[in-house]
Amino acid sequence: MNQPSVSSPSARGPADHDIRDQIVAAANEHFSQYGYGKTTVSDLAKAIGFSKAYIYKFFESKQAIGNAICTNCLTEIVAAVEQAINADGISPTERFRRLVKTLIATGVSLFFNDRKLYDIAAFAASERWPSSQVYDAQIKSFVLQIVREGRELGEFERKTPLDETVEAIHLALRPFINPLLLQHNLDFVEEAPSLISNLVLRSLMP
Amino acid sequence: MNQPSVSSPSARGPADHDIRDQIVAAANEHFSQYGYGKTTVSDLAKAIGFSKAYIYKFFESKQAIGNAICTNCLTEIVAAVEQAINADGISPTERFRRLVKTLIATGVSLFFNDRKLYDIAAFAASERWPSSQVYDAQIKSFVLQIVREGRELGEFERKTPLDETVEAIHLALRPFINPLLLQHNLDFVEEAPSLISNLVLRSLMP
Repeated sequence: MNQPSVSSPSARGPADHDIRDQIVAAANEHFSQYGYGKTTVSDLAKAIGFSKAYIYKFFESKQAIGNAICTNCLTEIVAAVEQAINADGISPTERFRRLVKTLIATGVSLFFNDRKLYDIAAFAASERWPSSQVYDAQIKSFVLQIVREGRELGEFERKTPLDETVEAIHLALRPFINPLLLQHNLDFVEEAPSLISNLVLRSLMP
Repeated sequence: MNQPSVSSPSARGPADHDIRDQIVAAANEHFSQYGYGKTTVSDLAKAIGFSKAYIYKFFESKQAIGNAICTNCLTEIVAAVEQAINADGISPTERFRRLVKTLIATGVSLFFNDRKLYDIAAFAASERWPSSQVYDAQIKSFVLQIVREGRELGEFERKTPLDETVEAIHLALRPFINPLLLQHNLDFVEEAPSLISNLVLRSLMP
């Protein structure tokens, strides 16, 4: 990345990634308050105290900033899921239950506690921003990992092609993985984790 | 229903239900062209050639007209599903596959061929209009009927409580039953019928 040429803090200023983080943090706060749609890069620049041109040195568009915010937010969900499923001494069946439960709980908590941020994630999902696609791929890789382990241990059936099983489970979880869909499924979030987990686990029985 | 007091066609005019049908048909055409949100009851009245007050003799609100349109539209989907699953000499497994396939195909066809009408159905789903709730209940009753028959014939497992099985399947089908969700799942409609059917059918194995 080039040295900023406009409104540069100083020739020996903070590293680029610090400035990026600073912009993302300020944008996060601003979007959380005013919403993504209603905020312009000019508004952001004013709020942070940078020039618009300087912000464009680091992010090519408002969407790029939104994507960075989503990446942070979805990374937190992924970390929560990872922690829940990677406990020692639990079976693939239990891992799967925890995957579903944590996914739904973190998504719902985002919806209720940080609605504006949730709305950015939903927008990201509808527009297929990279952050959203990466998230989807990570969840799918967790599913793959659990199913594969369950098959190796003889806990899950092995007749169905592995990729079909993973695709189908991912599709069944989609209403709760995808923020765009989850907001329309809030009525079901109480019973969904066990209903969906049980259904999928029955389908995995050897 | 009282006799219309304003702009009444005639004292011995057509029966009330004919007039209702006429209003619904005209509204359907009008909404299909201009959308539900943008059309007022005044617009409708003008287009049909009735007074607004006369329309209010038959429908208490624009939503009531929208609901009647949705009922017609969702009833067609239910009829298509019913025809597909009630063929003679097919197994519960095959019935279930047809249920899923027909549901998705009719929903997708509505989306692509009558988008404005689809949008009313999606709005109905988000606002839980009676038409949408009746539709949901009908689909669930088809699922119940198929699962029960499959259990009686020994084709499906019987250990899981029947209502849990039906609820879980209904939840798994929801992204494709509910117009609000289906529009965000269009990328998956090619592979979804077989992936979801296979997953559910594996879960039903005795």
